[in-house]
Amino acid sequence: MKYVGIDIGGMSIKAGVVEDGSILCKKTIETSAQASDVEIVKSIADLISALLFENSLSKDDIAGVGIGSPGSVYDEKGIIRYCCNINFKNTPIVQLLRDFTGIKNIKVSNDANCAALGETVYGAGKGAKNTVMLTLGTGVGTGIVVDGKLLTGNRSAGAEGGHITINFGGATCGCGKKGHLEAYASATALMNQISDACKKYPDSLLAKKVAEDGLSGKVVFDCKEQGDKVAERVVKKYLKYVGIGLVNYANIFYPEVLIIGGGISNQGDNIVKPLQRYVSRNVYGAEYNPKIKVVAATLKNDAGIVGASCLVM
Amino acid sequence: MKYVGIDIGGMSIKAGVVEDGSILCKKTIETSAQASDVEIVKSIADLISALLFENSLSKDDIAGVGIGSPGSVYDEKGIIRYCCNINFKNTPIVQLLRDFTGIKNIKVSNDANCAALGETVYGAGKGAKNTVMLTLGTGVGTGIVVDGKLLTGNRSAGAEGGHITINFGGATCGCGKKGHLEAYASATALMNQISDACKKYPDSLLAKKVAEDGLSGKVVFDCKEQGDKVAERVVKKYLKYVGIGLVNYANIFYPEVLIIGGGISNQGDNIVKPLQRYVSRNVYGAEYNPKIKVVAATLKNDAGIVGASCLVM
Repeated sequence: MKYVGIDIGGMSIKAGVVEDGSILCKKTIETSAQASDVEIVKSIADLISALLFENSLSKDDIAGVGIGSPGSVYDEKGIIRYCCNINFKNTPIVQLLRDFTGIKNIKVSNDANCAALGETVYGAGKGAKNTVMLTLGTGVGTGIVVDGKLLTGNRSAGAEGGHITINFGGATCGCGKKGHLEAYASATALMNQISDACKKYPDSLLAKKVAEDGLSGKVVFDCKEQGDKVAERVVKKYLKYVGIGLVNYANIFYPEVLIIGGGISNQGDNIVKPLQRYVSRNVYGAEYNPKIKVVAATLKNDAGIVGASCLVM
Repeated sequence: MKYVGIDIGGMSIKAGVVEDGSILCKKTIETSAQASDVEIVKSIADLISALLFENSLSKDDIAGVGIGSPGSVYDEKGIIRYCCNINFKNTPIVQLLRDFTGIKNIKVSNDANCAALGETVYGAGKGAKNTVMLTLGTGVGTGIVVDGKLLTGNRSAGAEGGHITINFGGATCGCGKKGHLEAYASATALMNQISDACKKYPDSLLAKKVAEDGLSGKVVFDCKEQGDKVAERVVKKYLKYVGIGLVNYANIFYPEVLIIGGGISNQGDNIVKPLQRYVSRNVYGAEYNPKIKVVAATLKNDAGIVGASCLVM
């Protein structure tokens, strides 16, 4: 069976035809910040038509269309409530796209949810029925799959899992509250932690490399690799924060697999091994239960399209 | 339809016939700490037979039997893995009880799960499809209902929600780890908080009352009622801890209702009103979403029997 996955982003909208988790063909358009929501949905319909035409496919070859979007999505109603930088505002995207394309089986969900679903079905969590994915980026996104289905909460308002308190009264989160996981474990938080360490230890290799090459997640892992103790401490502390988040989710869901997404997941074993140790040591009842595997996301840039297509399978 | 609910406790085993959430009749036996697991299950079968006989009912009148047990339960396999004070050890309670009674529709779950399910179907959460219940007792138990079904995690090892970190490096939990919700929000934790306050403020009304009447949750609420500032501070701080736990669950599940169980729920509005304020102020995205109601459990002593019966509906 062939499905279309749509990955809406702030810069571009990607469409791909997916079969058995592989992208057969794809096509991209720019996202317009000026266009109205109806115009954007029309452009998505046109994108699908062009993609199918160019690859000698017809709508009858497609079993459904899944859409992943940033912002607040009300899955059951097929509505995008709002979205930064794109003019979605209570936009009935599913109904509009049905009207424009004539395709009936269309669903929408948040992009973090789609990524988690894609990783669960075809990626790092393949074979598992219960997974939790933490995407460590500007914020901390969570995608939770329970018994093969996305957990989105009442009116799809849940799974805001970067905003769980892990240190009450602690560091300030992007949302303004204190002590949230996001304030410790996001990529943004790591940049702050690196920055603080550089100020405190201006003679460290880390501080020198940051001055030369700029601030990045990669630089701290590289410096640690080269034996810099300051970098080592920053990484160790940061991974402990991520570990605390993972263990909280493990104690609630006891999934088979915990998945790390976001740019930092490119560090592979550098982060997976210490996180695996932390989780295995700290999860509740680990001595009586099967080991929870910690893995890095594998679908990378394809996660959006593949994950969205999983919504309609 | 009539169901039997079995509530296994350390002191007694209760059986009740439940119809539309009401207990029509019930019967209790003592729990034997010496008996083997098979003997205990046989005594439960006899208890069911006696209960039905004394109330002119037959097995054909019963649509199923649900069992709630403390300890670690593997729901899908119908096994009690282990249980303090009762000789259950990988006991296939569902199969044994089927063999003893001839009744086929039998299920088992953890007692905290049963209580949450009972409260959701017939109690404080009636009408809701998504609820989270925190039971504040010796520890903090969590029962989570998603879309009308209990969430138990892979191999029923999840929903250990008292063991989520809310203050890393903080107070030591019963499980030995630091900073868990249970170490701040259990009834045990409240006793410690009262005790500490009495030592620090020996001239307070709270310290005097505790010296006279002994340590209890009730005494701190009574003293607050009488204007004692020390008691007021203890209650305020404790409810903030409970609130942090509720908000963490709200941000993950966004349930319609959050339910407080355990002895402290008898305080009613004294705890529900401040917790409602805390949750409404702190839940993520509250401005765009329906209000999450905070309520006290209502089934009280019947929660075990009614909740267990809900397993087989």
